Amino acid sequence: MFMCNSSTSSYFRNRRTVRNFQNRKVSAGLLNMILDESMHAPTTGNMQLYSVVVTCEENRRKELAKFHFNQPASVSAPVLLTVCADFNRFAKWCRVSGANHEFNNLQGLMMGLMDALIYAQQIVTISELNGLSTCYLGTTIYNAPEISQLLSLPAGVIPVVTVALGYATEMPDDSGRLPLEAIISEELYRNFTDEEVADLYAEKEAREDSRKFVAENNKKSLAQVFTDVRYPGSVLEPFSAKLHDYLTEQGFII
Amino acid sequence: MFMCNSSTSSYFRNRRTVRNFQNRKVSAGLLNMILDESMHAPTTGNMQLYSVVVTCEENRRKELAKFHFNQPASVSAPVLLTVCADFNRFAKWCRVSGANHEFNNLQGLMMGLMDALIYAQQIVTISELNGLSTCYLGTTIYNAPEISQLLSLPAGVIPVVTVALGYATEMPDDSGRLPLEAIISEELYRNFTDEEVADLYAEKEAREDSRKFVAENNKKSLAQVFTDVRYPGSVLEPFSAKLHDYLTEQGFII
Repeated sequence: MFMCNSSTSSYFRNRRTVRNFQNRKVSAGLLNMILDESMHAPTTGNMQLYSVVVTCEENRRKELAKFHFNQPASVSAPVLLTVCADFNRFAKWCRVSGANHEFNNLQGLMMGLMDALIYAQQIVTISELNGLSTCYLGTTIYNAPEISQLLSLPAGVIPVVTVALGYATEMPDDSGRLPLEAIISEELYRNFTDEEVADLYAEKEAREDSRKFVAENNKKSLAQVFTDVRYPGSVLEPFSAKLHDYLTEQGFII
Repeated sequence: MFMCNSSTSSYFRNRRTVRNFQNRKVSAGLLNMILDESMHAPTTGNMQLYSVVVTCEENRRKELAKFHFNQPASVSAPVLLTVCADFNRFAKWCRVSGANHEFNNLQGLMMGLMDALIYAQQIVTISELNGLSTCYLGTTIYNAPEISQLLSLPAGVIPVVTVALGYATEMPDDSGRLPLEAIISEELYRNFTDEEVADLYAEKEAREDSRKFVAENNKKSLAQVFTDVRYPGSVLEPFSAKLHDYLTEQGFII
């Protein structure tokens, strides 16, 4: 049995996402240790329907960063880990074993997404516990076709998420979270009233960084920053259509 | 900076998924601590597009276990945590804030799936570091409509994965993993030859539990156990059609 010590507990409560990295390499030994330990995370049926492409070369990092819209983390991190749902390796194993997999459907896709994301989060935790810092790039799935081409991913290998990895220039302030009651339901889903929801988000809205965000974007509420500036339909819809085509071509969506 | 100590490293390498739990409750204080610390995991734009329904009541656990095909973990665990992608709470906050979210598309769905799975994996890690054991139930998404009904999930709340939680009756043996080289590509995707793939899976196939698995199921290879017995198209296809309908009704897939 493994028990938590206070420093581990303190880590989980105080961890930060970092977007600016030192110009300092991550040793191959440390990186391999992290990727190896992370493999012991749970995986669907122990099939390990994932793989990871490690991008360290400067020119390729620059090319890759373009598909992440040159977000600061994608530009400054010395290592970009593109974590993929991988059906190609498994399919090849099936073929040489006289087996035919039929994972090219929505449930198959879900197995690969789960495996890739659970593996990615284990990488984040183990990296951070070893003195590194990380930032998820959720933009991977926006530009999955282009990233597939750049990294030579064959059909059946879907880039799901990228972990930017390196040594932080500095630890940012706490970005805050909702109160626990906002996310927990006991037994049956708790469908908050408008008033309750307003209360649950009040502290988040009152934060100085939130108010600055609203003012800078000339909006009337924090929610509008998310819906009108950061994740508007005009951005999500075309990237959804592109992702739909990409997944349909590979047979995961009909 | 948080540094790994040897016992944490040993945890990551030696953790086990547990399928049989003691008849022993998890205290509300410990559970809340775990769910609270886990909230500091990364989340898309700090939007926390997830929620968790905690099932402890015996009768409801039994009802829920049916939708998990009465897998041992679903039957014996004192706590079932259904982790959901939650757009309902966020949408309500947008509405009371004069904002209109347009997350009902494939990219919106991906944000919710990522948030839910990253949160779930943080729950698993923190639980295990605190002396509890866990088992993911990947079947949640097979029966998302039925589970939604049982747990009163409104539209926009998608049950993604379930974490069965409790105290282990015993620690199972190591289930093993592929060699690290099987999952890592440096710079460009490494597309293994048939011979290389056969080599990478050789140790897995040679395990006693694998050989027993093949013999019990009267198959010729381990891969056939996965494709013909555990995850055949005849199972995945109808559940994919059901999931497709469920996600289409909610507007996430067109």
